[in-house]
Amino acid sequence: MQVVGHKVPAKNALDKVTGGKGYAVNIVLPGMLHAKLLRSPYAHARVLAIDTSAAEKYPGVKAVLTAADVPQRLFHPVYFTPPETEEMVKDMQILSDRIRYAGQPVAAVAAVTAEIAEYATGLIEVDYEELPAVFTPEEATREGAPQLHETAVRNIAKRRAEEMGDLEAGFAEADYIFEGTYETQRVHTCYMEPRMVVVDSDYQGHLTVHSSNQQIFGLREKLAYALGIPQTRVTVVKPPYIGGGFGGKLDLGHIEPLAALLSMKCRKPVRIEQSRYENFITTARHPSKVTLKTGVKKDGTFTARYIRSVMDVGSHSTHGPMVMLALGAAAMCAYRCPNIKWDGDLVYTNNMMSGGYRGYGSPQAIFPIESQIDEICDELGLDPIEFRRRNAHQEGDANPFNPEIPLTTYRYEECLQQGAERIGWPRRAAAGADAGVKKRGIGLATQPFWVSGCMGVPDFYEHSGAIVKFNPDGTAHLSTATIDLGAGQNTTFCQIAAEELGLEKDQVFMSPYADTDILPFDAPTHASRGTYCSGTAVRAAATAAKQRLLQVASGMLGVSAEELEVSAGIITVKGSPGTAVPVSEVTRTAELPFIVQTADGPVPTSRPEDKGTIIGVASLAPPSNPSPASVEFVEVEVDTETGIVEILRVVFAHDIGKVINPIAAEGQVEGGFQQGMGYALMENLVFDQEVGTCLTSDFLDYKMPTSMEMPSDIESIFIESNEPSGPFGAKSLAEPCLTVVAPAIANAVFNATGARVRDLPITPEKILKALGKL
Amino acid sequence: MQVVGHKVPAKNALDKVTGGKGYAVNIVLPGMLHAKLLRSPYAHARVLAIDTSAAEKYPGVKAVLTAADVPQRLFHPVYFTPPETEEMVKDMQILSDRIRYAGQPVAAVAAVTAEIAEYATGLIEVDYEELPAVFTPEEATREGAPQLHETAVRNIAKRRAEEMGDLEAGFAEADYIFEGTYETQRVHTCYMEPRMVVVDSDYQGHLTVHSSNQQIFGLREKLAYALGIPQTRVTVVKPPYIGGGFGGKLDLGHIEPLAALLSMKCRKPVRIEQSRYENFITTARHPSKVTLKTGVKKDGTFTARYIRSVMDVGSHSTHGPMVMLALGAAAMCAYRCPNIKWDGDLVYTNNMMSGGYRGYGSPQAIFPIESQIDEICDELGLDPIEFRRRNAHQEGDANPFNPEIPLTTYRYEECLQQGAERIGWPRRAAAGADAGVKKRGIGLATQPFWVSGCMGVPDFYEHSGAIVKFNPDGTAHLSTATIDLGAGQNTTFCQIAAEELGLEKDQVFMSPYADTDILPFDAPTHASRGTYCSGTAVRAAATAAKQRLLQVASGMLGVSAEELEVSAGIITVKGSPGTAVPVSEVTRTAELPFIVQTADGPVPTSRPEDKGTIIGVASLAPPSNPSPASVEFVEVEVDTETGIVEILRVVFAHDIGKVINPIAAEGQVEGGFQQGMGYALMENLVFDQEVGTCLTSDFLDYKMPTSMEMPSDIESIFIESNEPSGPFGAKSLAEPCLTVVAPAIANAVFNATGARVRDLPITPEKILKALGKL
Repeated sequence: MQVVGHKVPAKNALDKVTGGKGYAVNIVLPGMLHAKLLRSPYAHARVLAIDTSAAEKYPGVKAVLTAADVPQRLFHPVYFTPPETEEMVKDMQILSDRIRYAGQPVAAVAAVTAEIAEYATGLIEVDYEELPAVFTPEEATREGAPQLHETAVRNIAKRRAEEMGDLEAGFAEADYIFEGTYETQRVHTCYMEPRMVVVDSDYQGHLTVHSSNQQIFGLREKLAYALGIPQTRVTVVKPPYIGGGFGGKLDLGHIEPLAALLSMKCRKPVRIEQSRYENFITTARHPSKVTLKTGVKKDGTFTARYIRSVMDVGSHSTHGPMVMLALGAAAMCAYRCPNIKWDGDLVYTNNMMSGGYRGYGSPQAIFPIESQIDEICDELGLDPIEFRRRNAHQEGDANPFNPEIPLTTYRYEECLQQGAERIGWPRRAAAGADAGVKKRGIGLATQPFWVSGCMGVPDFYEHSGAIVKFNPDGTAHLSTATIDLGAGQNTTFCQIAAEELGLEKDQVFMSPYADTDILPFDAPTHASRGTYCSGTAVRAAATAAKQRLLQVASGMLGVSAEELEVSAGIITVKGSPGTAVPVSEVTRTAELPFIVQTADGPVPTSRPEDKGTIIGVASLAPPSNPSPASVEFVEVEVDTETGIVEILRVVFAHDIGKVINPIAAEGQVEGGFQQGMGYALMENLVFDQEVGTCLTSDFLDYKMPTSMEMPSDIESIFIESNEPSGPFGAKSLAEPCLTVVAPAIANAVFNATGARVRDLPITPEKILKALGKL
Repeated sequence: MQVVGHKVPAKNALDKVTGGKGYAVNIVLPGMLHAKLLRSPYAHARVLAIDTSAAEKYPGVKAVLTAADVPQRLFHPVYFTPPETEEMVKDMQILSDRIRYAGQPVAAVAAVTAEIAEYATGLIEVDYEELPAVFTPEEATREGAPQLHETAVRNIAKRRAEEMGDLEAGFAEADYIFEGTYETQRVHTCYMEPRMVVVDSDYQGHLTVHSSNQQIFGLREKLAYALGIPQTRVTVVKPPYIGGGFGGKLDLGHIEPLAALLSMKCRKPVRIEQSRYENFITTARHPSKVTLKTGVKKDGTFTARYIRSVMDVGSHSTHGPMVMLALGAAAMCAYRCPNIKWDGDLVYTNNMMSGGYRGYGSPQAIFPIESQIDEICDELGLDPIEFRRRNAHQEGDANPFNPEIPLTTYRYEECLQQGAERIGWPRRAAAGADAGVKKRGIGLATQPFWVSGCMGVPDFYEHSGAIVKFNPDGTAHLSTATIDLGAGQNTTFCQIAAEELGLEKDQVFMSPYADTDILPFDAPTHASRGTYCSGTAVRAAATAAKQRLLQVASGMLGVSAEELEVSAGIITVKGSPGTAVPVSEVTRTAELPFIVQTADGPVPTSRPEDKGTIIGVASLAPPSNPSPASVEFVEVEVDTETGIVEILRVVFAHDIGKVINPIAAEGQVEGGFQQGMGYALMENLVFDQEVGTCLTSDFLDYKMPTSMEMPSDIESIFIESNEPSGPFGAKSLAEPCLTVVAPAIANAVFNATGARVRDLPITPEKILKALGKL
């Protein structure tokens, strides 16, 4: 292949790293107002009265909204499944008189500057009736606890149970039974570009929306639903790129409908940008507590597993039901096990809402599962690689989540083997065997099976579309609604189109701006779907454009289109490479008038039916979203006096089918490690336990790994299976390279020191405690 | 038909009349700089030296450009024919050291505000060598006159001669020969929204262009050519609407490449807006002098015509060669005449450049032709209606401009007859017969044959494209690169799409923003092409979308797509209206996931191959652009003491095929009358005859007809022929309703008073002179 598989750097990297104009946060519209939200200091309260008169009178203030001014319909903010689907819970309102978390918006003020709007929120007088609050699932589900939502008895937002085989018989069959409880914390996605929106209403109430959201069609539907207006009264503009999302920009927030209502009221564009603090308190990965009971035979074969998960969804359910389902699915499907049961509870508390975050339930499942495997192997003296190989699915098995689809490509074992080779697995010693104060150890974790969307979960929106258009100079433009979150999707898609069109790698451009009015539908950029799902649509649109190209060329060369092929920008007759015409000549001719005037007089240009822009369009549902395999080895050094963990070396091995752009794939893996390392060792949103207020206010007190903490040595191995249903053999990557990091580090820390930490983050304090030093 | 032919008001009228955000002139980009141009006070000069140091040092100034800083390649600014075509003359430069008209840009300054930029232009010191200048074609073509361009001997920019038949024999055959010379003045298009541009260069030098131009693809090509960069480094954004164009925004000006170069230099968006004065001095309708010698038989049949035209193109040729050709074509083709010759000269002078203006050469041809017919009829006692009928082309005749195409629909005679009836032609008295000081009269003028683009002139760009996309709620969006200049194209296209799709009139929306990266090619909105050419593409795209719609519906209804039809939003089985499904159900289902969860469990939604957005695309060259017929009757009252002309009543009769939107068609006719009336009676750009400086500075000293001068009584009759090649039988209108106004008024003034004025505008002074009162 000429373009696919080659390293292609992103075209607009310089613009992006310099805070470029393409970010939605840089949008400025003429006459634009700025709005700020007044947020409740109480975690649970009723608003008895609001006096906005002083704010309204303040110079520069243009409008104030309270619950009385906004539609009171309940909505759920996540565009994952159609509105008909029962799975999601409609429990949100644009503004409500009932406060359920500290920071919930109570009012919104639009003014000529953000500073005036901010100041005027302080002039609003609110009379609250404080209500008793609950901050843990244990408290919330206790008899007599205050109930947050009418429909949720004992604050169970959603309960789900799944069983396969016979659990009791499975445990009876086991030689050993292991049980442990694993906890994870609340972390934030930490996209660099804040959540923001500019909504511009025209005089007819048509809304044009600029946003850093991860979706344009989802945002259109959700915003229209919350406002109670037709979708076609909303146009959402796709920015060229956004500054990260990681699942944290996959819902309708308060800011979008509030900006819309303020814009409709003021007949001016209204901008709302969330502060870093507001970003922190409006979405997070669900904290979880998973109890895992596992029966194994002596040789390490699973006989039974029981998973009980409790997740704190916070004040509103948002993504919760789907994240919980994903946790259950990841836990149940990762390995073969004939008897398995999962009980999941999603619990409302007066904490901030949880949301979507890369991994989407899997990190909370894989940390327990992979930690426990290590515990079992250590206890039974089994090799962790052999143990996993024994229990893993095999290529050709049925998809454990949807038996109608086989695992066509699944190179998990080769990932294990090559990863082990590169990390130097044989030098791994027994746990805590390293002498001295600074102890080294090697850990392993894997996400062998990944539940993706599409036919894996066929009730998700997964359709994609693309438009491929030739320019007269023989280059082409590609347009798609899929948003590049920073993972290089735009470059990858251009490579797929270029390969299919027979162009060079720099001859296909991504159309930077487009909107929901012109683009074919696309699901949000979520669920590791870009390369496979959108890539399939991009290739199909390119195929359509190529067909038209060859049809026009056939008129010029006097042969049938079927006899033609195109490569490196040249169309040739198959078998007669001498008979050729450049793509640029065909595209130019197609757009010429019927005749051109030349020195020799008028000359006809081509057949009348071959006139026009050469363009292809595709909109389709991809056939599947096949599972990649993700294996990670990590070597650490733990200072047993300070408890500080240093990452020395990381080896990832992935089967993601054909790698379209190695630079982008490696970038995904390295970024995944960084987020996983933060989750494993340091990140945590901290709350006042009495009143529920978030104490983490900005990046100065939210510790993430930076280049200072990142290991310099991350090796990515790609086992290139050739997925037959994927574009040029590709599968998607994205999430599984994150989910394995925390257990791999936990296992490496254990291997180094013998200290097992079962709750994240694995802080120095916890290590020292586990070592009996604190 | 359900939608076509019905009156549909424009959706965004309120936004437009309130100076809405959709105008490109309202674009604001973050960090945007403002640029102003320093213009030469001399009409002919050489720049010997420029000192920009003071301007560069002035606080807030970010960049200054002179000729030394810009590419010196010659270009022609008009996108009408491909670059290969010899017809156009490359004689312009972005900035040049050779000044050829008073007001030619010499330097450009970008600064943080427009005021600073303007002030800083005054700090630039220019050392000019003044050269002798010529301000009339007579002076310019005189032996020894200063030569403006190296390639143009005696300042003839272009000379063209065409002959049919045997002119001498024709005159020999004539019973009478009439000869007269007719002159027209320099008028401005007077679009309300000024020419402006914002160019935004990214770090890679990719340019995004916002402009009020009448074209996006033409602007892309022309700008790239002038800068010497690939077209694909330029993205031109289509605004939802522009504030008029009338042909005055059909070229590349100085401002677009200057804004681009300044933006590349400063790495910030740069905005240039022309002041009203700058608009006046950068484009105008070519002043002309036409001598018309006509041989007729006693019964009024033409035997021979000789046309000699001289047009003052000003300093640079721009549209000139094509406008001259259009003048010649309009003069030669209007009526049947076996022996005809045209000599045309286009002459450079040191006046401002002429440009495109609605009618494009036709007003300069039709004023002499229709005036002279009236003179002949008056002299020979013939009826002007009968005279025209005798000499007109007939339906079925060959197209006089391209004999391969017949005049399929051509209801000129019915237009004459019905117009005459409505104006009350029989009450028309002899010239000057009305007694009293205020004399009334009735005049007639026609543009029987209109030379349009497409196959009529097959070396014009006339391709059009469209994308039609269904929304899940069963409505549809339409996208096209054709720009709505204010004539209601957006509404007309939505009607065509709705009719074809079987939707209601309010169920198709025009996608407001899109750009050259995503849209299929479209020729500029020029040459009366919108309804016919773009409308053909819109209908084809709708047909493609409908086919896909019926295919998906066929899966739902279990019948073949061929058995289905759609109307008023309902798809039915032909002959079995009981078996039906709403369009909205089909479009919704197509975008649903494979299965949906319901109370009864998971339910499959449709065949996998029917998933995806229902979308259709078309890009094509329309087969022709058939001629409308335009007939105008006007009744005036002339005050013979003051010379003031009042328009009492106007009757227009047109064959424009099927009328898609009667509101828009009537609006075209009324707007055409207004511009024609200004041309006929009052408009004129005034220049200092010594130094060539334009003295008309704004609308206070450029007199146009306003609602105060407009007649309240304008009647539009449409003879609805059914053009087989047009969308739903439609032809275009646009220009011919303007070209007939000046001669109709001149003829009415003559009929009222007996005073014949052969040079426009027909001012009170000229009337009084003709009456011998001055």
